[in-house]
Amino acid sequence: MNSIDKLSEMFSKFPGIGPRQAKRFVYYLLSRNGTYTQELIQAIQNLKKEISQCSECQRYFVSLGKDSPCSICADDTRDTSMLMVVPRDVDLEAVEKSGTYKGYYFVLGGVVPILEKEPEKKVRINKLQGIINNRKDLKEIILAMNANQDGEHTTEYVKEQCQGPSLTFSVLGRGLSTGAELEYADPETLKNAFLHRTK
Amino acid sequence: MNSIDKLSEMFSKFPGIGPRQAKRFVYYLLSRNGTYTQELIQAIQNLKKEISQCSECQRYFVSLGKDSPCSICADDTRDTSMLMVVPRDVDLEAVEKSGTYKGYYFVLGGVVPILEKEPEKKVRINKLQGIINNRKDLKEIILAMNANQDGEHTTEYVKEQCQGPSLTFSVLGRGLSTGAELEYADPETLKNAFLHRTK
Amino acid sequence: MNSIDKLSEMFSKFPGIGPRQAKRFVYYLLSRNGTYTQELIQAIQNLKKEISQCSECQRYFVSLGKDSPCSICADDTRDTSMLMVVPRDVDLEAVEKSGTYKGYYFVLGGVVPILEKEPEKKVRINKLQGIINNRKDLKEIILAMNANQDGEHTTEYVKEQCQGPSLTFSVLGRGLSTGAELEYADPETLKNAFLHRTK
Amino acid sequence: MNSIDKLSEMFSKFPGIGPRQAKRFVYYLLSRNGTYTQELIQAIQNLKKEISQCSECQRYFVSLGKDSPCSICADDTRDTSMLMVVPRDVDLEAVEKSGTYKGYYFVLGGVVPILEKEPEKKVRINKLQGIINNRKDLKEIILAMNANQDGEHTTEYVKEQCQGPSLTFSVLGRGLSTGAELEYADPETLKNAFLHRTK
Repeated sequence: MNSIDKLSEMFSKFPGIGPRQAKRFVYYLLSRNGTYTQELIQAIQNLKKEISQCSECQRYFVSLGKDSPCSICADDTRDTSMLMVVPRDVDLEAVEKSGTYKGYYFVLGGVVPILEKEPEKKVRINKLQGIINNRKDLKEIILAMNANQDGEHTTEYVKEQCQGPSLTFSVLGRGLSTGAELEYADPETLKNAFLHRTK
Repeated sequence: MNSIDKLSEMFSKFPGIGPRQAKRFVYYLLSRNGTYTQELIQAIQNLKKEISQCSECQRYFVSLGKDSPCSICADDTRDTSMLMVVPRDVDLEAVEKSGTYKGYYFVLGGVVPILEKEPEKKVRINKLQGIINNRKDLKEIILAMNANQDGEHTTEYVKEQCQGPSLTFSVLGRGLSTGAELEYADPETLKNAFLHRTK
Repeated sequence: MNSIDKLSEMFSKFPGIGPRQAKRFVYYLLSRNGTYTQELIQAIQNLKKEISQCSECQRYFVSLGKDSPCSICADDTRDTSMLMVVPRDVDLEAVEKSGTYKGYYFVLGGVVPILEKEPEKKVRINKLQGIINNRKDLKEIILAMNANQDGEHTTEYVKEQCQGPSLTFSVLGRGLSTGAELEYADPETLKNAFLHRTK
Repeated sequence: MNSIDKLSEMFSKFPGIGPRQAKRFVYYLLSRNGTYTQELIQAIQNLKKEISQCSECQRYFVSLGKDSPCSICADDTRDTSMLMVVPRDVDLEAVEKSGTYKGYYFVLGGVVPILEKEPEKKVRINKLQGIINNRKDLKEIILAMNANQDGEHTTEYVKEQCQGPSLTFSVLGRGLSTGAELEYADPETLKNAFLHRTK
């Protein structure tokens, strides 16, 4: 395999990229000069050097080689009674940006599809169990999953695996997302939108 | 204008229909025999004969010529303390199907866009004011609008126009609609999803 | 079935219309006054009165009750050696608007899908055979079908059914449609685009 | 700027990639182990080492460090009287795969938009002029551009810049692309489809 095909193949494994767009990436790199390529390689190397996975919440963060937990997990002004479990790093970022939640997080690393036979290999359930055992003040686990079938199944799976005597589980509230129209909303959404109406 | 063009023009005013599809409708009618056309005309005439607008909620319903209010407005087991204001008939149907709400409805007949100069001509605000004045038990008006700019503006407009000493206004709860993903949810939606989380 | 549901059902059989949009049409009619409904019914009745199918090319045209062929078929300055077979009325209109073809047309009334068992019931092949037998000057039949599988199959079917000693069959030229990009063009299109290049 | 943001920014300049997908690429890299990252870096370095731009047609090809023209330009059985000018490498590949054209190519490196002020900086027009001067047998230049406004403008621009006493210019044939439907075809396409009909 020549190096155009080799690199195309690697790019085509990037999330959401097909073979045609992968090839465009390769021609884009060919059209740029050597300095650019060096800069890209440098950025990839720096990524691996500067970014670590947090030993607590498992998200990737700028550790600059140090071995401490991330800034959120190290922030002891946050609410130790709550842990929000999210599927991926980008979900944690979205919730953090919304600015209301002040507890801690755990990034599960994905979701558990319904027919998954080895869920413990798809998500960090063992790590999560360890974290829960260590957090003595923990009272509520918020399962913040996408509002779809895989999300609901993941919620069920985590609940099952993480039961504890003094733990409450909660899930994100359903209702009208921004932009939603009544006519196209499903009964479940409308029911919750009514029950959670605000004055 | 010949009758193909004339009918095409009328069909092109149907909601969501452009000139090309309007013409397809005409050719479809031409391809069907005379019996079909008679049946269609009959159905249109029956619609106008059998369906009236409810004098209370303003929705269209099968009155069969009688002049009473619709089956929902005539149902005196419903909760007289609540009135849900929806933009259109289909929205009322969607909420009614979701099966949780047991108060009365009012169909506003549309929404009030932000720059609308004569909102009282776009929606049935005067009718709504009359209904509110007549309903002595009424405590809460639920403004069930689409979760978009026009919906929010309509909510503001109705609140302004319908103030009353003992009335509370509420709006549908925001949160994750079915199918919503955290990564793509806006901060407002995420904030509400967290605040309305369920255990 | 009440008249809202009855009319919704009829509209949902219109080409490209689903149940939800059909219902919107019904509410649209309900929102319009009685004069509008009368006008719509009148337009449908006029359509059936004023429009006939041409005895020659089979297209629908404004006959105003008279029984003659349509204006194209009645035009004896056109080229009697060519007959273009198109699937539907809208295709005839599109070609006629492009302004280059000056022969006669025949509207087949549809296409013949590959697994169709009774093609003679789907398209007007018998009518076409009659027309061909009557046109003594006819030399070329242009099979103007869509550039897809059904179109190609229809071309094969018509060729098979209409063979004649002095007849030539032709098909529309393949090449780049307006807006086409080389990168996404299939080999057949590119091959023809090269062979039919113009200087 | 931390290295997640830095690499995200670089990926967001890749063709067709926005900031959100760029960030997903970064998290994808973070989720892969160090071996994978090394492999990716190696593939990028190899690309730059093994691939050169052909001194004749300007396309990128596997030169493995050697300095000769590419395999197409080095093939002296091809037709020296024809040169096909294409916008990009992928267009050359698409035409070559279609298997009919047997002359030589030139990759222009892009297109010239209508309001472009410095077209000679956007495309390799000077290189093309040099190639044309050197090819004594050349008779026909095929301007193989996309069938859109920019493509047509590029055709005009190249014609203007490359006039020569014994040169003919041609453009790819217009007609029905695979999948095209008569009803939606523009008059230009239909006109050409008729004129280039095949028997």
